[in-house]
Amino acid sequence: MLDLHEATSPEVGQAISKGAVAVLAVGAQEQHGAHLPLSTDTVMAQGVARRIAEAIGGLLLPPIAYGDAWNNEGFPGTLSLSPDTMRAIFMDIGRGLSRSGFRALVIVNGHFGNREPIALAARLLKQETGFPVFHLDYPGMEQAANDICDSKPAAPTFYHADEVETSMMLALAPHLVRMDKAAAEYPTFPATFGMEAISLSTFNKSGVFGDPTSSTAAKGEALIARIVDESVKLVDLFLSDR
Amino acid sequence: MLDLHEATSPEVGQAISKGAVAVLAVGAQEQHGAHLPLSTDTVMAQGVARRIAEAIGGLLLPPIAYGDAWNNEGFPGTLSLSPDTMRAIFMDIGRGLSRSGFRALVIVNGHFGNREPIALAARLLKQETGFPVFHLDYPGMEQAANDICDSKPAAPTFYHADEVETSMMLALAPHLVRMDKAAAEYPTFPATFGMEAISLSTFNKSGVFGDPTSSTAAKGEALIARIVDESVKLVDLFLSDR
Amino acid sequence: MLDLHEATSPEVGQAISKGAVAVLAVGAQEQHGAHLPLSTDTVMAQGVARRIAEAIGGLLLPPIAYGDAWNNEGFPGTLSLSPDTMRAIFMDIGRGLSRSGFRALVIVNGHFGNREPIALAARLLKQETGFPVFHLDYPGMEQAANDICDSKPAAPTFYHADEVETSMMLALAPHLVRMDKAAAEYPTFPATFGMEAISLSTFNKSGVFGDPTSSTAAKGEALIARIVDESVKLVDLFLSDR
Amino acid sequence: MLDLHEATSPEVGQAISKGAVAVLAVGAQEQHGAHLPLSTDTVMAQGVARRIAEAIGGLLLPPIAYGDAWNNEGFPGTLSLSPDTMRAIFMDIGRGLSRSGFRALVIVNGHFGNREPIALAARLLKQETGFPVFHLDYPGMEQAANDICDSKPAAPTFYHADEVETSMMLALAPHLVRMDKAAAEYPTFPATFGMEAISLSTFNKSGVFGDPTSSTAAKGEALIARIVDESVKLVDLFLSDR
Amino acid sequence: MLDLHEATSPEVGQAISKGAVAVLAVGAQEQHGAHLPLSTDTVMAQGVARRIAEAIGGLLLPPIAYGDAWNNEGFPGTLSLSPDTMRAIFMDIGRGLSRSGFRALVIVNGHFGNREPIALAARLLKQETGFPVFHLDYPGMEQAANDICDSKPAAPTFYHADEVETSMMLALAPHLVRMDKAAAEYPTFPATFGMEAISLSTFNKSGVFGDPTSSTAAKGEALIARIVDESVKLVDLFLSDR
Amino acid sequence: MLDLHEATSPEVGQAISKGAVAVLAVGAQEQHGAHLPLSTDTVMAQGVARRIAEAIGGLLLPPIAYGDAWNNEGFPGTLSLSPDTMRAIFMDIGRGLSRSGFRALVIVNGHFGNREPIALAARLLKQETGFPVFHLDYPGMEQAANDICDSKPAAPTFYHADEVETSMMLALAPHLVRMDKAAAEYPTFPATFGMEAISLSTFNKSGVFGDPTSSTAAKGEALIARIVDESVKLVDLFLSDR
Repeated sequence: MLDLHEATSPEVGQAISKGAVAVLAVGAQEQHGAHLPLSTDTVMAQGVARRIAEAIGGLLLPPIAYGDAWNNEGFPGTLSLSPDTMRAIFMDIGRGLSRSGFRALVIVNGHFGNREPIALAARLLKQETGFPVFHLDYPGMEQAANDICDSKPAAPTFYHADEVETSMMLALAPHLVRMDKAAAEYPTFPATFGMEAISLSTFNKSGVFGDPTSSTAAKGEALIARIVDESVKLVDLFLSDR
Repeated sequence: MLDLHEATSPEVGQAISKGAVAVLAVGAQEQHGAHLPLSTDTVMAQGVARRIAEAIGGLLLPPIAYGDAWNNEGFPGTLSLSPDTMRAIFMDIGRGLSRSGFRALVIVNGHFGNREPIALAARLLKQETGFPVFHLDYPGMEQAANDICDSKPAAPTFYHADEVETSMMLALAPHLVRMDKAAAEYPTFPATFGMEAISLSTFNKSGVFGDPTSSTAAKGEALIARIVDESVKLVDLFLSDR
Repeated sequence: MLDLHEATSPEVGQAISKGAVAVLAVGAQEQHGAHLPLSTDTVMAQGVARRIAEAIGGLLLPPIAYGDAWNNEGFPGTLSLSPDTMRAIFMDIGRGLSRSGFRALVIVNGHFGNREPIALAARLLKQETGFPVFHLDYPGMEQAANDICDSKPAAPTFYHADEVETSMMLALAPHLVRMDKAAAEYPTFPATFGMEAISLSTFNKSGVFGDPTSSTAAKGEALIARIVDESVKLVDLFLSDR
Repeated sequence: MLDLHEATSPEVGQAISKGAVAVLAVGAQEQHGAHLPLSTDTVMAQGVARRIAEAIGGLLLPPIAYGDAWNNEGFPGTLSLSPDTMRAIFMDIGRGLSRSGFRALVIVNGHFGNREPIALAARLLKQETGFPVFHLDYPGMEQAANDICDSKPAAPTFYHADEVETSMMLALAPHLVRMDKAAAEYPTFPATFGMEAISLSTFNKSGVFGDPTSSTAAKGEALIARIVDESVKLVDLFLSDR
Repeated sequence: MLDLHEATSPEVGQAISKGAVAVLAVGAQEQHGAHLPLSTDTVMAQGVARRIAEAIGGLLLPPIAYGDAWNNEGFPGTLSLSPDTMRAIFMDIGRGLSRSGFRALVIVNGHFGNREPIALAARLLKQETGFPVFHLDYPGMEQAANDICDSKPAAPTFYHADEVETSMMLALAPHLVRMDKAAAEYPTFPATFGMEAISLSTFNKSGVFGDPTSSTAAKGEALIARIVDESVKLVDLFLSDR
Repeated sequence: MLDLHEATSPEVGQAISKGAVAVLAVGAQEQHGAHLPLSTDTVMAQGVARRIAEAIGGLLLPPIAYGDAWNNEGFPGTLSLSPDTMRAIFMDIGRGLSRSGFRALVIVNGHFGNREPIALAARLLKQETGFPVFHLDYPGMEQAANDICDSKPAAPTFYHADEVETSMMLALAPHLVRMDKAAAEYPTFPATFGMEAISLSTFNKSGVFGDPTSSTAAKGEALIARIVDESVKLVDLFLSDR
């Protein structure tokens, strides 16, 4: 594994000549209640991406610390990139990796709003350059959360500042978690949620969806291990015919 | 000072209500020879930005870790965003800060190739929203380098993996510097440099421009102090009539 | 209800003065096996949209007969619009409706690949003009399919040329269905499906996902009734506070 | 002839292997007075396109039911796509046909405002992919109108809701024509018409240009026959050297 | 009249305060046979624009010397701007004039291929800023050519390097005309001309359409006078209600 | 040397077959005080470009008479193109030259604000087509101004309506210079100049930067000769390996 934040150019040159796979975490600058930092999605995605890179001998790129978090802009500190800007970032990085001779790019996405621009860039890069891009959204997380966590999510597969995310943050960056400020909120979703452009702050007070109070680093560690295992299996499959 | 990587949404909300100024470092993922990491420009810009934020009580945004480094793409590990993508990032962030009620944005740029998209975004944001953007390119660096460093730059105001950058990295992130690999190179610039699109790797072997061998953390500390002092003076001027 | 394919300008003028809601079906030109026409998604969306328009007294726009069906381009007859073109269509129509004095737009989407450009246009129109856009993806379909159909879908909520779609087509446009050519196929999805850009034709032979052989018009009628009921309930909620 | 609204994917596959030519009608959603439907241009273009497809054994695509009708937006029910959106639609469809192995695309345009984006897309597709696009604007219509109709157009080659269009609609879709509401209007064109952006509603009251009162289905049939004959002759010429 | 090539800023400031109308000629860099210069369309448009500016007391902008001449690119020396670039130029200039306080913009177009981007920019500027743009394509030219010239055009209203253009050039810039090289060519237009993207050089040998041999400066003078008279009448009408 | 304003298509055809190099001057429509015309930058760039073309046997294109002069828009008569429009112009012309068989393009830039779009287009054209573009910004001007002129510039390398520009205009177009209106102004630059978007008119009254009063044609001639000599040397170097 090579962390491209720390590595030098000659080290990357050597890795490329052996068939380097780049791993890129994509997060967000987004409110996560009073107990988690604005960088939560980035920290988590980078944490998972680092372990995947370690497992596959990949080259870990600096993470993208901003995402499309438009529906959380009602809360201070959230800062979004538009979907077009997000796509442009992935296109530029993908083209650069392709020109440089990388074998493939694995994107580890930590924020729901980034899914579409990532998937679209993957498709367009394949069409334009043939460069293979694989994108992961914490595979296996639903099952793992079910198995490991005590509280229920506020909505199916909706994990935001809850036990899942808080536990993962306790495992990855405990100094950034204020457990004394963790408090549950189970907001009532509007019946039309997902069918019109609704800001989350119109029905969510604290920025928390679910109950983070029983979060522990051990649970976080277990969640990460499950996600990483599942991810590595899928990446291996993806790379096997390339 | 609030580091928005670590801060929570309510903390930012409080800061905004008191007139928050955002500080954003912009770096690059770019080769810096065999002794400096690919993240050199990001680490340096973030280091300077952090001290400026401390001095002015600003809110430090997560840095932009990619820049437009097209002319270094001949060296492995360099990854560029296009000028249009860079501009889009600054436009999105500027619009978001403006909507959120921030007072101003100060951009600390650590990479030459980012100057134009930053300046253009500053102009367009002013026209579109009136939001004030201030952008700094290490003010006072030339004089400081002259005063503090022993070696000459490879070309006037051209500091790349040389004594200036290496000293600053020794001050900011010594664990990322391989001084044993530091070696001087004074490449001969083509007479037509700057008048056509020339890849640096066509006339530069090691990725180093100048002589990093006499770099020290103390020199780096002195350089940073001078740049920060000068920057804070200018930021204060900029903010004084806003 | 006014069908804007048939209506005249003065008729629309009258309707607008009373607070007209536009209803727009979005389909696709996409392969649907040997027994369903390429227009299947358009016919279904328009059929559902028509009943919604009837129920709410809406103005039914001509349907968009092309969608983003890139992953079915391996089958002849599929023709896609890019996500950017799709978005542009919705933006133009939304702006026009807003300028014309319409009260709102309800989009009835019949094709998975259109979801993102529709949702994005809804968001952008709200930001740009405040014009309210509501978008439906056959609400209640999963439960209804479960209740009404005999066969299982090839994957959860994946209905393509199967018993669900074939039954709905038998209810809406029986002359376009070749039941004698209907045959089941339960393709094995690649484990990495949804994580890379995969053409469906690489693992699906016939263009059918599931088993259309037991389809009937009565089932189709029941499915449509359930979807329309659920849709109308949601549209009423959406309109109630506008 | 294959109608791609009704055809299945395997049927198109067979046709392509024999050298399929696609035929695409482009209309508009535009006011046509009190006696003709908003879809008039689409119905007419599709009617003509269908006969051309029949004559040449072409594959008839679903029509584009929206056009650039900006200068009729002063009348309710008109809904425009911008020229850029129109062009994007033709580019996407042309690229798709080219990738799919079609031999050529024939566009039958039924609305003046669409001419430029169609011609521009044809040019760009030729440059980009070499794919041949032929575009028809009712060739021979002026002579035919002169020969067949009793009334004069409101301006040379300006046929809008007049005897020409009403007769053609009576031939193609009589149920959509309200002859009892047909009334003549010969508006006075501003002297600067065509030299500045003028909305038609500023000098036209009823939406009619000319005199539709003597329209008959027989005249419409004769007009269509002449246009189709002329079109087929030109298409044959176009295809002969491809 | 003020020629903005020669005028100073204070002079323009004075003119604006009295309600300045800008006049902009748009030409092309396009082949015009062996006897006329590549700048023919620019010279002619600027000549006509200058007289219009004189007549109305307008401010004459520097001409746009490049146009969209794609179908003449088969001949050396032709250089085109794309329609999008042309539009962007007019949008930028129109916005600038509007911000500066100009009363209106009159565009004098000398090249057929520029018509659409000019008309589109005029429409968009009106929508975006309300700034009035008037665009002229040599009004009255057909009648004048008929009255004054001896030869026939190669096609109706198609004047290219023929008696009309050559005479006008003899009147405006005789030193740029090589009458000894003037020779007639009446090319046979393909039957499908205007219906597909056809380069003129595929059926035109010399670049001349028509017969320039009987051209004289006196005829050119007469043509220009007629066009200018007609133009000024129309501009006055346009300006009268502004 | 061939001036493409005057030349005919066959003449260019001949030149291309021998390896033609195009020379393009880029100026601005920008205020230059009360004594110099708005076209100053265009006249100067074209004057220098003409001599370079003469020296290298190049083909002189019509100049681009508009530039990006946004920071002078506070003065009447300034009209800007956006950086994107500027870039598009250079891309279109570069592509056209490349398709036409030209050997290279030399751009002579006469306005600071155009530098970036020119350099960017040069880079993108090289990547897209390999077509070589060389861009000059009056090389050697600083040294020449120092040697030849009596007054100091208002800021280092900042020459605007001062002795340098006025002398060059006296040499190139004396009829456009009003020496009786020439007056010195040495404005005080804001300390934050270049770090935020500042209109020059906020700190500059007359539009003059420096002292034009001692300007002479002889000095202008000398300046031009030095710049042209230096330019030709560089162009020869650039062309030598192509």
